[in-house]
Amino acid sequence: MNQGAFLTPDGCRFCVWAPYRSRCELSLVDPTQRIYPMEKDGAGYWTVTVPEAKPGWLYQYRLDGEKELPDPASRCQPRGVHGPSEIIDPSFPWTDRSWSGLALPDYVLYELHVGTYTPEGSFAAILPRLPELRQLGIRAIEIMPVAQFPGRRNWGYDGVYPFAVQTSYGGIAGLKTLVNACHTAGLAVVLDVVYNHLGPEGNYLSQFGPYFTENYRTPWGPAVNFDDADSDEVRGYFLQNAHTWFAEFHIDALRLDAIHAIHDESAFPFLEELALRTRQWERELDRPLLLFAETDRNDPRLVRPRPGGNGLPAQWCDDFHHALHGLLTGEKQGYYADFGGVTDLAKAFSQGYVLDGRYSPYRRRRHGAPPDGVGREQFVVFAQNHDQVGNRAHGDRLSSILDFSSRKLAAASLLFSDFLPLLFMGEEYGEPRPFPYFVDHEDPELLEAVRNGRKREFAAFHDAAGDDIPDPAAEATFFSAVLQWERRHAGSHGVLWEFYRELLILRERVLRHIPLDAREDSCEADEKTGLLRLR
Amino acid sequence: MNQGAFLTPDGCRFCVWAPYRSRCELSLVDPTQRIYPMEKDGAGYWTVTVPEAKPGWLYQYRLDGEKELPDPASRCQPRGVHGPSEIIDPSFPWTDRSWSGLALPDYVLYELHVGTYTPEGSFAAILPRLPELRQLGIRAIEIMPVAQFPGRRNWGYDGVYPFAVQTSYGGIAGLKTLVNACHTAGLAVVLDVVYNHLGPEGNYLSQFGPYFTENYRTPWGPAVNFDDADSDEVRGYFLQNAHTWFAEFHIDALRLDAIHAIHDESAFPFLEELALRTRQWERELDRPLLLFAETDRNDPRLVRPRPGGNGLPAQWCDDFHHALHGLLTGEKQGYYADFGGVTDLAKAFSQGYVLDGRYSPYRRRRHGAPPDGVGREQFVVFAQNHDQVGNRAHGDRLSSILDFSSRKLAAASLLFSDFLPLLFMGEEYGEPRPFPYFVDHEDPELLEAVRNGRKREFAAFHDAAGDDIPDPAAEATFFSAVLQWERRHAGSHGVLWEFYRELLILRERVLRHIPLDAREDSCEADEKTGLLRLR
Repeated sequence: MNQGAFLTPDGCRFCVWAPYRSRCELSLVDPTQRIYPMEKDGAGYWTVTVPEAKPGWLYQYRLDGEKELPDPASRCQPRGVHGPSEIIDPSFPWTDRSWSGLALPDYVLYELHVGTYTPEGSFAAILPRLPELRQLGIRAIEIMPVAQFPGRRNWGYDGVYPFAVQTSYGGIAGLKTLVNACHTAGLAVVLDVVYNHLGPEGNYLSQFGPYFTENYRTPWGPAVNFDDADSDEVRGYFLQNAHTWFAEFHIDALRLDAIHAIHDESAFPFLEELALRTRQWERELDRPLLLFAETDRNDPRLVRPRPGGNGLPAQWCDDFHHALHGLLTGEKQGYYADFGGVTDLAKAFSQGYVLDGRYSPYRRRRHGAPPDGVGREQFVVFAQNHDQVGNRAHGDRLSSILDFSSRKLAAASLLFSDFLPLLFMGEEYGEPRPFPYFVDHEDPELLEAVRNGRKREFAAFHDAAGDDIPDPAAEATFFSAVLQWERRHAGSHGVLWEFYRELLILRERVLRHIPLDAREDSCEADEKTGLLRLR
Repeated sequence: MNQGAFLTPDGCRFCVWAPYRSRCELSLVDPTQRIYPMEKDGAGYWTVTVPEAKPGWLYQYRLDGEKELPDPASRCQPRGVHGPSEIIDPSFPWTDRSWSGLALPDYVLYELHVGTYTPEGSFAAILPRLPELRQLGIRAIEIMPVAQFPGRRNWGYDGVYPFAVQTSYGGIAGLKTLVNACHTAGLAVVLDVVYNHLGPEGNYLSQFGPYFTENYRTPWGPAVNFDDADSDEVRGYFLQNAHTWFAEFHIDALRLDAIHAIHDESAFPFLEELALRTRQWERELDRPLLLFAETDRNDPRLVRPRPGGNGLPAQWCDDFHHALHGLLTGEKQGYYADFGGVTDLAKAFSQGYVLDGRYSPYRRRRHGAPPDGVGREQFVVFAQNHDQVGNRAHGDRLSSILDFSSRKLAAASLLFSDFLPLLFMGEEYGEPRPFPYFVDHEDPELLEAVRNGRKREFAAFHDAAGDDIPDPAAEATFFSAVLQWERRHAGSHGVLWEFYRELLILRERVLRHIPLDAREDSCEADEKTGLLRLR
């Protein structure tokens, strides 16, 4: 059953899942204060319809007569993650009727972080940039997570209201306006969603029901319950979430964050169910709907068709990045230990996975399996992305690591790779500013834990870089990441921008007319000369 | 690399994996006392060859100059789980040259527990019974785990030396004698092996290396590390174990205990690797080698061929049991809540899984997936087994729950089911004695924990049965389980025995000549009349 507050002809219908509570009440908070008893069904959903409740009104749920909590399916948190939820009106003056979606092989992605992409840090501020992105050759923007997070500065992976759009970005209306404008400009929209955990601050879900499980662990807290008791309803919550983005927000594709942290040993895993439902929604909404899974498992079953595979349309391919980065920079720290030679890049060019069952010194075990039967358009590749830049101690981009010709080489490798390319915002003109990790938690203990965690991580990843890393909680760290978009046509920035544009035009003209899978792939590498020949 | 103490032309070669130790020494304990330094290779294996060491000598390993510990790959623990390991001579006067193994569809299994199958509780005491088992129609005995466990009384799932054979059963020579006799009598041998955990007492493996992981939990302690750092070597240890049973002991098949507790999210799971290696060993040893996985996942991918599936040959099918037991007894406690009607049994007859994606009230979620593409010979079914009997509060068999005709109905359902049938020792003549849970730990705290654990379990499973359950640690509980084999031809016991034999002859004559997969299956059920018609 769909959770949340929905306007109906009879009034606003509230529905919340709290299967183990013996009492649940709706509490209107502002402008009216009133408590309404709710009725429970057999599956643990509590409902009440309130004729007088209107969009803009604030509400909470009172569980067992105790503390009042925001709605797990809140669509708007105007006073932040700890405050009450707001009833919203989902109607929007859409003008994207002519948009018919983008097919998988046509994706050329541009990943952006709303808060730092523009000085304003809002959805609205992105709109003027869309025509130029299309002109560059971009076919889809990929928005880092926008679910409501604590404070105003966050990559987005600490979101705690999967259905609410960050208010400081412009909220639901802001996102819809952006999607509408993208479609009008000929761009698809990919939204990054986090189904593997919820952030550490303002996460009240476990007060309502068994959303989490102790059976598995994630690096970021308790794992979401996808295979234990009551997991059908937890799955239903996330399926409703995916459907909402597709149906109500006109989103074209979801990027599924770190699915290797979605632990699920059931015979019908959540991701398979999501893929299957997405195919069904595709038919209902009559346009292509896609899922791009981020994974480090190198397990081709994820993207192989059912019944052998889980049937996901596509996945990120980190190995391509690591092979390219390792070769161009010579770096050997952390997971780069597994990569380096031109032979590895050749392998990445020919099959995506470099670790296809071979021993990984970094993981101290064999890793991956050969990607037999996986189509080339099922891999998204990149020379940079928010993680590969931002998880460096100083968040430094290739622009401050590589010389100009090497960056051009990186661009050419990416865009002629036969896979689906993804650019990270600013990459196209060599933005010199970094993309460091930043947060804005209210809880001082949590902040200290985040600071220490980052230090530990970098102590392991980079030699002797533990102490002078930017403070994730400092406002200055956030501001240091804001793009200098105005530089994009100046000097060498402009040369690089033109280079990306030319390559994308070439890619479109030459490559697009050969189906990805039909391309004869010949890739020869010579470690001595460092020569790599693609045909 | 193979671990253990092996006789070579140059003397006894010792090898042990201890990758994070900076020193490892061999300590001869009896009759000679002497310390030998060992040498470490790049993968963390320590080796030394001692020319004078002989079979029968006792040894331990000294890690970092500290406490001496038994060999993780010990083949014999003459002084129990805490004592030193013994060098063994693997040679044996095999006379089973004419045995060519048993093909999967021909299996008719008979599960037995060595300790309680005979008054002597030894391998040797089983030998005189083999001809009559063959006469009954049995094609394979399945031996509950024999890995060295603490004390003398244990089901076998608390074993802590996967390579050592319980000394009180007769050790390595006793098992080989039994296998040899089985093959001579025309019986295959299935050995139950536990690769999902090690027992709680005498388990020193984590002193040697990362055999376990904190990433997952099992109900019985830390999970075995099959997918984290250094897991290649942990897998190697268990693969060596499987190979040893097949090659050195002439075992025909392994029953893999509770593989749902083998947690492994890698792209090439351990079980898939084991299945693949088993196929290879099959070619090398030139006879059929099989794996029967016990699982409660109802996930057909386990037994589907690669690359879609893990390629295991066969699995236990609990649903068949639960549907049959639920229908015949009317019981509704625990997992029987999910079963009951004649329609469920009809479903079990036609496809094995009853829970094929439908909602399970017991698990509070949907469970399983349809077993499309799975062959009927890939399911082992039973009306009773050690778990289904022994995990009842009093370990009572169907013989004390059902009337005589119902037990005949159970036998007929089992043996005409089209799947591979398994009998639990004594079932064939309606043994009245129970098969309760029993242990013989030395540690009093552990004993108390086991007692309380059982009570808790039964409090949940059976109403108000928590207090009067047999004490698992009492010798009397063990003795209460010893079969009264001498009764097998007396009175109604003899009638039942003959009934089983007749059914097995019919099964052999009629069913065996129709390939399992070619059988037209028509199964009609009528809940009102309770009629079930099989064609």
